[in-house]
Amino acid sequence: MHFAPSSPIGIFDSGVGGLTVARAVMERLPRESIVYFGDTARVPYGVKSPDTVARFARQIAEFLLARDVKMLIIACNTMAAVAYEEIRAISPVPVLEVIDAGARTAVARTRNRRIAVIGTPSTIASGAYLEAIERHDDSGMFIAAQACPLFVPLVEEGWLDHPVTRLTAFEYLTPLLAQNVDTLVLGCTHYPLLKPMLASVMGQGVRLVDSAEAVSERVEDLLRAMDLENPGPGEPEHVFHVTDVPQRFREVGERFLGRKLGTVLVESI
Amino acid sequence: MHFAPSSPIGIFDSGVGGLTVARAVMERLPRESIVYFGDTARVPYGVKSPDTVARFARQIAEFLLARDVKMLIIACNTMAAVAYEEIRAISPVPVLEVIDAGARTAVARTRNRRIAVIGTPSTIASGAYLEAIERHDDSGMFIAAQACPLFVPLVEEGWLDHPVTRLTAFEYLTPLLAQNVDTLVLGCTHYPLLKPMLASVMGQGVRLVDSAEAVSERVEDLLRAMDLENPGPGEPEHVFHVTDVPQRFREVGERFLGRKLGTVLVESI
Repeated sequence: MHFAPSSPIGIFDSGVGGLTVARAVMERLPRESIVYFGDTARVPYGVKSPDTVARFARQIAEFLLARDVKMLIIACNTMAAVAYEEIRAISPVPVLEVIDAGARTAVARTRNRRIAVIGTPSTIASGAYLEAIERHDDSGMFIAAQACPLFVPLVEEGWLDHPVTRLTAFEYLTPLLAQNVDTLVLGCTHYPLLKPMLASVMGQGVRLVDSAEAVSERVEDLLRAMDLENPGPGEPEHVFHVTDVPQRFREVGERFLGRKLGTVLVESI
Repeated sequence: MHFAPSSPIGIFDSGVGGLTVARAVMERLPRESIVYFGDTARVPYGVKSPDTVARFARQIAEFLLARDVKMLIIACNTMAAVAYEEIRAISPVPVLEVIDAGARTAVARTRNRRIAVIGTPSTIASGAYLEAIERHDDSGMFIAAQACPLFVPLVEEGWLDHPVTRLTAFEYLTPLLAQNVDTLVLGCTHYPLLKPMLASVMGQGVRLVDSAEAVSERVEDLLRAMDLENPGPGEPEHVFHVTDVPQRFREVGERFLGRKLGTVLVESI
């Protein structure tokens, strides 16, 4: 495997959610090429067992490494929670992931040292955010965690500020409000689309941490530190690989990416 | 492949939803053995493309046929909609499925000849219920169809009569109420768990058709007609094969099955 500063960044997720990470990277680093992989035939991972998630994650990482990426970004909290070490072990290039990035930003932003994390059931059950926050600050912050399994299907339905979504948010978030947190980590790549609604439910005193933005900052830092920024010239390329083209794929994908999807290739892995 | 009257019935679904069909078959035919297959590693199928669903369905049918089942039941509306003919082509034993059974019962029950069908996006987009209803009555009944993508995650969250679920149901069902239908087909194996709530939203004038019950009646008829009823003696066996044991699998599975899950085996296909 050979990579160079002009090589693409590999970004992967269980489905379309990671497109919020691709979007954040495109906005921050418009000269970089991106190869995205979304495992749309087997999505969602959030309710699957750790062994299955790790097996799928390895298959995807190998697919991207074979395309000479210069960096891997695990744009899926579930895979980051259970498969980061395994992917790092097989990767000759640096591996970044959303959980560490989100945790780091949350630690930097909290003032009262009380942080809440929301995510899929498997991300929350893994305790990965708790571990990551404690890795960045071991002085015993208060951390509350809440699984929000309905947010992903609500986002995919496009009910971003629908009364149903708002009522669901109150159900999930009221216990967190009672804990007097000042920072809420959006621990799932689908959640940035709910940001305005979540901000209004949590109120002005709570800062939202978007892991997609957080990881794009880390990508910029690391490319600079390793002297791997794309020097140009030439337009960056954005290629999207998926394992299935489900109903409404473009509509949903473009809502996540915030722009037109270009080339979409269907792969069997 | 060899089967006999004492052989099991093979029932399969993309996940746990088909357990409502297994339950209806167990209740109606308590002497029959059952081999269940739920593709929990790749669930849900409802948003995947027809080609992918058909490929997965063939793999599962082959797995069950290798276990000498005397009959196959496609307990998944999505697979029934797109893969019935393909499975019938490879199966040496009879194949029943939920859509034809539900359509037949709806045609028999409607009085004003106005039927509504609800299901996942892919089941509704396939038009399979429309086709099946017209196969049983070609005199031009009025048929309304509505995709309800959030019902599956709401059922799996256990919010069977939660205000969020009720509000979601009003959102999806109000257009159907306006059509003056007298029969509502629950075109997804998850929906029987919402039956009391759906009945109250639709009101007394609307009959609900549960495809799980409908298919179990067809199983009974066919076993009798083919003289394939299990003659006993000996206790029936119920074995459950899944491709993953996700978070809360037993809890969710037992809610669907209405009793304890016995032996659960994890398979890789």
